[in-house]
Amino acid sequence: MPPDGDFPGHIDVPVMSAPVLGRTTQHSAAWETISTRKITDREAILARWPDWHLKKQVPDSALDVSSLPVSGLTPREREIVHHDATSLVEALRERRYTAVEVTRAFCHVATIAQGLTNCLTEVFFGEALERATELDRHMQETGKPVGPLHGLPVSIKDHILVKGRDTASGYAEWAYRTVSDRDAVAVAILRKAGAVLYVKTANPQTLLALETNNNIYGRTLNPFNRKLTPGGSSGGEGALISVHGSPLGIGTDIGGSIRIPAAHMGLYGLKGSVARMPHAGLLGSHDGMDAITGALGPIATSARDLALFCRVMLQYRPWLLEPPLIEMPWRQDVVDGVDIPNQLCIAILWDDGVVAPHPPILDALKRAKDALLAAGHEVITWEPVGHQEAWDLILKLYFLDGGAEYRETLAHDPPVPQIEWMMSQVPNDGAPFSVAEIFRLNLAREAFRAKILQHWNSTEARTRTGRPVDAVLSPVAPTLAPPHDTTRWWGYTSYWNLMDYSAAVFPVGRLDADEYRARDVSADIVLPSDSRNPTEEFIRAQWAPQTYHNAAVSLQLIGRRLNEERVLGMLRKVEDALHSSH
Amino acid sequence: MPPDGDFPGHIDVPVMSAPVLGRTTQHSAAWETISTRKITDREAILARWPDWHLKKQVPDSALDVSSLPVSGLTPREREIVHHDATSLVEALRERRYTAVEVTRAFCHVATIAQGLTNCLTEVFFGEALERATELDRHMQETGKPVGPLHGLPVSIKDHILVKGRDTASGYAEWAYRTVSDRDAVAVAILRKAGAVLYVKTANPQTLLALETNNNIYGRTLNPFNRKLTPGGSSGGEGALISVHGSPLGIGTDIGGSIRIPAAHMGLYGLKGSVARMPHAGLLGSHDGMDAITGALGPIATSARDLALFCRVMLQYRPWLLEPPLIEMPWRQDVVDGVDIPNQLCIAILWDDGVVAPHPPILDALKRAKDALLAAGHEVITWEPVGHQEAWDLILKLYFLDGGAEYRETLAHDPPVPQIEWMMSQVPNDGAPFSVAEIFRLNLAREAFRAKILQHWNSTEARTRTGRPVDAVLSPVAPTLAPPHDTTRWWGYTSYWNLMDYSAAVFPVGRLDADEYRARDVSADIVLPSDSRNPTEEFIRAQWAPQTYHNAAVSLQLIGRRLNEERVLGMLRKVEDALHSSH
Repeated sequence: MPPDGDFPGHIDVPVMSAPVLGRTTQHSAAWETISTRKITDREAILARWPDWHLKKQVPDSALDVSSLPVSGLTPREREIVHHDATSLVEALRERRYTAVEVTRAFCHVATIAQGLTNCLTEVFFGEALERATELDRHMQETGKPVGPLHGLPVSIKDHILVKGRDTASGYAEWAYRTVSDRDAVAVAILRKAGAVLYVKTANPQTLLALETNNNIYGRTLNPFNRKLTPGGSSGGEGALISVHGSPLGIGTDIGGSIRIPAAHMGLYGLKGSVARMPHAGLLGSHDGMDAITGALGPIATSARDLALFCRVMLQYRPWLLEPPLIEMPWRQDVVDGVDIPNQLCIAILWDDGVVAPHPPILDALKRAKDALLAAGHEVITWEPVGHQEAWDLILKLYFLDGGAEYRETLAHDPPVPQIEWMMSQVPNDGAPFSVAEIFRLNLAREAFRAKILQHWNSTEARTRTGRPVDAVLSPVAPTLAPPHDTTRWWGYTSYWNLMDYSAAVFPVGRLDADEYRARDVSADIVLPSDSRNPTEEFIRAQWAPQTYHNAAVSLQLIGRRLNEERVLGMLRKVEDALHSSH
Repeated sequence: MPPDGDFPGHIDVPVMSAPVLGRTTQHSAAWETISTRKITDREAILARWPDWHLKKQVPDSALDVSSLPVSGLTPREREIVHHDATSLVEALRERRYTAVEVTRAFCHVATIAQGLTNCLTEVFFGEALERATELDRHMQETGKPVGPLHGLPVSIKDHILVKGRDTASGYAEWAYRTVSDRDAVAVAILRKAGAVLYVKTANPQTLLALETNNNIYGRTLNPFNRKLTPGGSSGGEGALISVHGSPLGIGTDIGGSIRIPAAHMGLYGLKGSVARMPHAGLLGSHDGMDAITGALGPIATSARDLALFCRVMLQYRPWLLEPPLIEMPWRQDVVDGVDIPNQLCIAILWDDGVVAPHPPILDALKRAKDALLAAGHEVITWEPVGHQEAWDLILKLYFLDGGAEYRETLAHDPPVPQIEWMMSQVPNDGAPFSVAEIFRLNLAREAFRAKILQHWNSTEARTRTGRPVDAVLSPVAPTLAPPHDTTRWWGYTSYWNLMDYSAAVFPVGRLDADEYRARDVSADIVLPSDSRNPTEEFIRAQWAPQTYHNAAVSLQLIGRRLNEERVLGMLRKVEDALHSSH
């Protein structure tokens, strides 16, 4: 039951129709004009709070700007923005901070983060401060929080509906005409839970990119090395949260869009299985596509915040609002360890057989392996099966219409480089699949899922316990955060979208190019001596420590379908092992 | 955990490919030849057990033959076949009966039922008796049952794969070329649980009919009045189980195919939500269609047997085998009353606004209402919303390809009357929908589901408790079992497939045409004075007590999505109320 006993039926569920609008009538203005207007609007709003801007100019050549957003804070503000969401909510509940001062601190940091990384789209600090004032008043009058997220600022990816705000979603075509009359269900729940909404954040054109660039706002930068991408498509979230401009954000993931920015920015991200978390109220192309669908989920600075988000979402019983959602209450006891074996058996995916990971990622896996073994867990190798096949298949599912809808939109909104690359991957020579072909693709997807499920089950033959492995530990991508416009391989993340498995991303370090020495992993994995395909050749040629200086190193822990709680419960044990090995 | 601790990963999951085979190569023989051969084969097998045949000829004009199948039984055999599955399993476990004598009794009844109603397709009594012998030996040697269904005969609808058996599924084209190399997952679980498989049962050509007729075997008859249909598509199951030829059967339902035969035959049937029960290993047209999918479920002689079936299926954790299944263990405690309010609030659907039910169905609803009120439950009226809209939409989802695949198959296998009617309903002028249109249909489906979910939630304004209604009580069809070839309106069942809600069917009586007097239901429902459409006109004109003499009267109890346990828990309270009002 929701904490306030309120029946969630009172939330208005959004009906998604904006893309249809965006397709049927065309803006009279060119995209360049719309872009200028959106950027001018955003700057005008930010200009209302001049105190929150950085006092000095930062040259474009400055690469690591990650410490600047918090540089002008008071010690108390600095303390506030360094909390994770869980402890911040606790502090707010205990009235150690007011909602207003917390909101102000994050607005302050977000303003600077925006100037340095171009991570924001819609800014509504005024509404946020009003809401925070109300929350403080409620707390003062009743002595009670409004809900489980009382006073917590939460940032929202641009394509997720927020009432009264534009939902341009990376398309200039949609700007100013997708002002929503209601909240996405996840956003409505956040509001009911007492969260403070203050910004929406950048996502790429089409959303089908693991970088963040669009014709409205341009590119979002990685604040730890601005030559690198923060990842995408939830890249604005990644950039913002990584510099403490938000304690918690929501993204979406249909091929890696939560996990990649979380990984590249050294954060935590959870892509649950489809239909576990609220999903109604997202704008994007291909509305109604259900052969493959995405999942909404949190990006945060701690693993426990991922659980906090999920727990709050499911506390409001969103399955009573959104027909596709599964009535499966959150099992916090599992996150806390119930039903999680003390000795895990984890399979490590060293190389997916298509694109071998760069050395620092293999190093991270090796370090994790040693730490897991030292903590008494079992580790075996995950034999990769069909990663190229999975990519070829998911590409077809992404482009059932042969790319027609994207091409139509891009006719007035020229593709940014990552989208140009993606459109070059369109299968079936750009023709739509027939109904019979779609049925066969659905069957191929189910056959693939059955094959990999069987593969997972069959690990029972290789474990000491005789039970199948509990989780797969894997790279998130073959590289750390890549230089802009060079992301070329989604296979480490999109594979688990095709499988619809639960996957969490967590940080394990940061690359110092000057000190970097590759570890010897030859006992664990035989790497191909030659590139196995042009993609691997491209990515192999990219490797040079200096290119990735200061980039986050992250890993991915994958569990079975709808096992979000188990993944987080296991992640706790994995992190315990990693920390005790230091 | 499965009772034997066996990991279900050891079950081979079938890959469905037979329809593709059936389409790409054509039988050299005409359907008439195949039909003769299949029927001859079936009769030859039945002829091996001459003692089980009826000793006298029954003229085709004999309408009520329902008592004949058990007429030649010994008192002990008669006792056996009158158990429900739950008590039979208990008796077998307690060694009051041997598996062999139980199997023989049901084979005996099934043989006669076949002769009277044409309900069987594949017959494998020999294999069944061998299996029963093994089970008895196991029991004798170990003192323990093989599994929770030790020795229970279970009948299987034809299109569900049974290893070593043909899966013609109502298409002459598929006969003899769809002998399966493995079991459907549900069948494999039945075997592991100790069930005895002995027959497969008739389903109609295309499976898309609520009657049972095909070019291989012809029509299946309703043993209580052979002028009437037993319903379909799981009509062989209905006819067989209703005369005690099987204690439990499995059917499938994408528009009413479990519920309609259960209702017309005075049995219990459960259509759960998609992805709750095992589903892999069914043959049918449109393999890979997932805009609308069916559910596999039980048909039985008691409500508790529905729970028995589900409990056993989920005990084997089929989600570890079949990727689409939801990891949601069976909550028998809910069936037994936990979390079920003592005072239910039930909404009665008197008329769906398209085709008003015939008087005996309104009478049954009225009687149920009175009984529920007398037992202290609350009853309100369910306002029907969009039943014609739902039908128009689900028809499009059934025929995304404009009927092309069916037409192709029917070219060599001429449509039986119900299929001729169904093919006349094909939308979109028989053209396939485009990818963009399919996306819009998916959206329309989701919008419809959201609207009805909201409608359900909104009943909170009309209940005394202030909570939404717990269940909807509804007709199963506008008529009792119709005369052959006259079924015209699916809306009372297919609506809940479109919604993907859990629905159980249960018997409330049988029509005696000579004694029948309609009750006055005018206080509860204003019936239209004129027919609202040609379908209603057709069905209204059909009403005459004598036409439906001896037909079962049944109702449907509907709960929210994935609430199978709650529906069965509520059904228990509803039946208690009905029984105490007698």
